[in-house]
Amino acid sequence: MENMLKQFNFIVEIDKLKTIERRTKIIHGSRLENDAEHSWHLAMMAMILQHHANENIDLLKVIKMLLIHDLVEIDAGDTFAYDTDGQVDKFDRETKAAKRLFGMLPAEQEEEFTQLWLEFENKETEEAKFASSLDRLQPLVHNSLNQGDTWQKYGITSEQVINRNKEIHHGSEKLWEYAQTIIKSSVEQGILTK
Amino acid sequence: MENMLKQFNFIVEIDKLKTIERRTKIIHGSRLENDAEHSWHLAMMAMILQHHANENIDLLKVIKMLLIHDLVEIDAGDTFAYDTDGQVDKFDRETKAAKRLFGMLPAEQEEEFTQLWLEFENKETEEAKFASSLDRLQPLVHNSLNQGDTWQKYGITSEQVINRNKEIHHGSEKLWEYAQTIIKSSVEQGILTK
Repeated sequence: MENMLKQFNFIVEIDKLKTIERRTKIIHGSRLENDAEHSWHLAMMAMILQHHANENIDLLKVIKMLLIHDLVEIDAGDTFAYDTDGQVDKFDRETKAAKRLFGMLPAEQEEEFTQLWLEFENKETEEAKFASSLDRLQPLVHNSLNQGDTWQKYGITSEQVINRNKEIHHGSEKLWEYAQTIIKSSVEQGILTK
Repeated sequence: MENMLKQFNFIVEIDKLKTIERRTKIIHGSRLENDAEHSWHLAMMAMILQHHANENIDLLKVIKMLLIHDLVEIDAGDTFAYDTDGQVDKFDRETKAAKRLFGMLPAEQEEEFTQLWLEFENKETEEAKFASSLDRLQPLVHNSLNQGDTWQKYGITSEQVINRNKEIHHGSEKLWEYAQTIIKSSVEQGILTK
């Protein structure tokens, strides 16, 4: 019963992920996306695109990572992908957040969640590489269908987009090929500066 | 490549789930929850609460069902749990939606998604029973922490809440016990009419 109470306190706490705004708009609407719906979308993409991964992957592990990968932003906030200053202390802020948040769970689950989050961050296993590819690819798809909203607002160039996203190929060569067609087409449409 | 284009058309289409509002408010905020963040929250609950299921369950299958269970609402809309009229043609409306939406996917995935959705709806397998328990339990937790918002707004009594939620025990006796403590405490606090 004590474990169950801990679990429900955690379940209530993580509701806050629904209030953490990203820099990307949803596709069908004009508001910013939040981290909870973003995480759902990535888990769906894992289900749908799993066969495009470079190597065989454990789908359950990929989905678990994607469901929890942004939880640390409840305390640490969303660090914008192209914010060089924010990237400097990102890992420290997020480690502190992981400690507090996952520390609310029973010990065994605290360990599991911490390990999954670190595995995602380290991008060394096939599962982490593939999960990370989807996390890069999704906002690219959104921006290409939102008149390049984030790119325009922050003056992001195609070179920056390519530099940030080329690591998609570590998880999936096929998805990186697809991503490149999106970038090319966005430049041609004039919604992404060359 | 043709399959990949179908998959991305589907991934873009299901972004609409972020715009389908439920009747329940988020816990940390005053706005209504949408179906995408609700589905994320349920998938997290499955990860966290899996060991309270009555029987051994295939966690990946439970999570897949929860991620996709509300997609049909993109066309059919959210049918309020206590709307008796809406319940009458709910399955017909949702079946039509499933056909259109899942029909966007390559044949093999169309089959998988349709079967997962039907399995969830039929509540016969252990996975479907457990997934359905979480789908009932989550709004109960939300309302108990939101001054009974939905209950107050629509004049829902504790008898209705018990009748709707008692089937939680099919998936988890332990979670139904916990749910009953929430209902009792909500009545005591005066946020749910006896």
